[in-house]
Amino acid sequence: MGDYRDLWQSLDMDLEKHDQLCAVLPEFYGDIYLSQENRPEGMNYFNFVISEIHGLRVQELAEHRKQGGKVLGSFCVFVPDEMIVAADAIGVGLCGGSDFWIPDGERVLPRNMCPLIKASVGAKLSGTCPYFQSVDLLVGETTCDGKKKAWEILEGYVPMHVMDLPQMKRKKDYLHWMDELWLFKEKIEKLTGNEITEEKLAKGIQRINQKRAVLQRLYNTRKAENLPISGKDVLLITQIAFYDDPERFTAKVAELCEELEDRIAKGIGVFKEGTPRILVTGTPMAIPNWKLHHMIETSGGAVVCEETCTGTRYFENLVKEEGNTLEEQIRGLADRYLGINCACFTPNKGRIDDIIRLYKEYRADGVVYYSLPFCHTYALEYKKVKEALDQAGIPVIMVESDYSLQDAGQIKTRLEAFFEMLEISKAKKEVAATE
Amino acid sequence: MGDYRDLWQSLDMDLEKHDQLCAVLPEFYGDIYLSQENRPEGMNYFNFVISEIHGLRVQELAEHRKQGGKVLGSFCVFVPDEMIVAADAIGVGLCGGSDFWIPDGERVLPRNMCPLIKASVGAKLSGTCPYFQSVDLLVGETTCDGKKKAWEILEGYVPMHVMDLPQMKRKKDYLHWMDELWLFKEKIEKLTGNEITEEKLAKGIQRINQKRAVLQRLYNTRKAENLPISGKDVLLITQIAFYDDPERFTAKVAELCEELEDRIAKGIGVFKEGTPRILVTGTPMAIPNWKLHHMIETSGGAVVCEETCTGTRYFENLVKEEGNTLEEQIRGLADRYLGINCACFTPNKGRIDDIIRLYKEYRADGVVYYSLPFCHTYALEYKKVKEALDQAGIPVIMVESDYSLQDAGQIKTRLEAFFEMLEISKAKKEVAATE
Ligand code: SF4
Ligand code: SF4
Ligand code: SF4
Ligand code: SF4
Repeated sequence: MGDYRDLWQSLDMDLEKHDQLCAVLPEFYGDIYLSQENRPEGMNYFNFVISEIHGLRVQELAEHRKQGGKVLGSFCVFVPDEMIVAADAIGVGLCGGSDFWIPDGERVLPRNMCPLIKASVGAKLSGTCPYFQSVDLLVGETTCDGKKKAWEILEGYVPMHVMDLPQMKRKKDYLHWMDELWLFKEKIEKLTGNEITEEKLAKGIQRINQKRAVLQRLYNTRKAENLPISGKDVLLITQIAFYDDPERFTAKVAELCEELEDRIAKGIGVFKEGTPRILVTGTPMAIPNWKLHHMIETSGGAVVCEETCTGTRYFENLVKEEGNTLEEQIRGLADRYLGINCACFTPNKGRIDDIIRLYKEYRADGVVYYSLPFCHTYALEYKKVKEALDQAGIPVIMVESDYSLQDAGQIKTRLEAFFEMLEISKAKKEVAATE
Repeated sequence: MGDYRDLWQSLDMDLEKHDQLCAVLPEFYGDIYLSQENRPEGMNYFNFVISEIHGLRVQELAEHRKQGGKVLGSFCVFVPDEMIVAADAIGVGLCGGSDFWIPDGERVLPRNMCPLIKASVGAKLSGTCPYFQSVDLLVGETTCDGKKKAWEILEGYVPMHVMDLPQMKRKKDYLHWMDELWLFKEKIEKLTGNEITEEKLAKGIQRINQKRAVLQRLYNTRKAENLPISGKDVLLITQIAFYDDPERFTAKVAELCEELEDRIAKGIGVFKEGTPRILVTGTPMAIPNWKLHHMIETSGGAVVCEETCTGTRYFENLVKEEGNTLEEQIRGLADRYLGINCACFTPNKGRIDDIIRLYKEYRADGVVYYSLPFCHTYALEYKKVKEALDQAGIPVIMVESDYSLQDAGQIKTRLEAFFEMLEISKAKKEVAATE
């Protein structure tokens, strides 16, 4: 990594503390990622992005801001990127995935909170996240109680705008959400001084659609019998989607897809035959939260899909590009976004349908339901999901875990037993099929 | 208590388990309530209500239902009683305040949940709450994540209607809430077969206003220098307000108020002079959760007011009685209800104003901020409240506690130290005032 101390200084960061953070990441990343065998060549770009995580992209943001451009931070896939880029602003996803920030978060938040919220707030308070420091406006949402009330505290540290996500999906809630999109449009226009015209919004929708489409293409390669890429690697790519430059990201993922499609044609896989294929569903995993995927893929499983916000919820469903007026475009955005089935909605039957559909599409053998501790909505929704999966004959296991490694041994033991069970029932099915 | 076994049987209750519940309550109540000295005569009615808690009132509900009337259960002060009585239905507040129900709640809910939710759900699942068993429709609301998702589970056990409370208080959120009131009206009309006319709603508004007004009168007696009644007793009365017959309740509280006003005139108090006066603020306390009040009043403090949903949030602000059309009446209801400052709103600055106002009105010396564990909204809101109280020079202490008695010793020690500090600073102020 280059020398970015001046840059960091200009962002009013706590350099000493930041050094501590920088000191641990490379080894952590090396152990989890670089140790993998037979990785696709195309992962080199993403290795590079991580090695420059607090450097190159942050510099790009700084240059953008020097030229009068604005940077918007967000914590949820409901904040519409299309509008942000339409105003020539840059959007960055900020959710904190590291234990490092939790003590700072706990200075102002109760301990009994989901680590994502504590780490996100701690990242700001500690002054060690250069993205957070680059943000001109933080866009919150009323998705869960923890975040809803955390914005009130963060407001003391950074300019905020809160989008009021409806809690249901009736007709009037659609209208409510459309109205929130209009309010957001006004807010960004005021902030950036750039009007969001039909043309600009059409272009923004196209650009973000392309990014989503290439992620879908990447995920499609995971439907193959021989997995050409590990789940861990795909998770990393989805995480990077939240803050990399959209065009560059799209091009790099497309390159990787060529390689992966070629691997599929040649029958090259990164897991040994018969490895149980796992669909992960649940709460988001922010960088560098690679814990669950790492545990799964070192315990005899392979992750084939994530029904999470750092997975399918981020890229499935494109915004209609036919809209010619702002009204139509905003309706198109509302349609796309309210198609996301987050546990914050009641009821949220659509998520169960998604899980079952993805399980089939990705030819999974079992489901790992992941929940961060103290996330009420996802923890509560487990009961209904479990009932539906039981009924559909789909094996599922619940893993509740935060960012610390204390519980790793115990979880690995549970996962190993689960995968063994899946292998046995898979073998039985195959025998039955040939008989 | 009379013999109600046939009644309970008819409600499909688990009689054996219910016997266990009934076996503990009288002693518990005796220890906490009957041991008080110099109690007002007027408390006899409320003692009677408690002694008949699963009897007489339940029988009234059964008779009402036999004649075709309906019973609606609710868990939150946002569910408008005025409409329920306008349709000749009976509303009962159901929040569970006992440890007894928690194991049954944990059969279907995560452990990391607020005890109020676990106990409420457990009360239903265990079949030991005759009120819950009498309910024809349960009215939920989208106030907090835990309840919002718990309704999805309860739906499997009892007919449900969920009111979507807005999360903000902008103009459009008022309209949204008014719309929810219209939907609720439709729902009750369909359920009861009774149309809610202007006349009937006007009468309903009056009846409930009377109940709220008498509670305000009761609370006013606590503003006196010599407290004529303990905080514990007032808490009990407010809890009973949630399910007693409104007219009878209003009459009985009015009787009690005469006695208390007479006590004030005569200078009779139930605490020794100089006892620190405490404003309690925070999460609701459902029957039989008398823990905090009991601890405060046996540790040298006296509770003078509750800024909670089993306190001022329940009765402050009346619905305008001038409304002549349903539109005006429903607007009046929306105004009254959105005047409640629950931590589920963002922002919720109004609650801070309420706390400071009540602190002055009730001449409190200190504030105890009460939060049930895992209640994100109230726990998070503490930071802002604390900052504002610090700034206003108002002493505050945070007590997070569930229904078990394990933490009682530790909390009493903290409370005693807090009260001592209050007494010293009170004495200092008095000395300064006489100098
Ligand atoms: S889980 Fe829900 S609240 Fe969290 S990022 Fe996803 S959509 Fe947003
Ligand atoms: S994981 Fe759950 S508690 Fe945490 S931010 Fe997301 S929805 Fe909220
Ligand atoms: S604290 Fe809020 S959610 Fe709970 S009963 Fe009161 S108003 Fe309803
Ligand atoms: S105390 Fe808090 S968590 Fe419990 S029901 Fe009320 S608002 Fe929800």
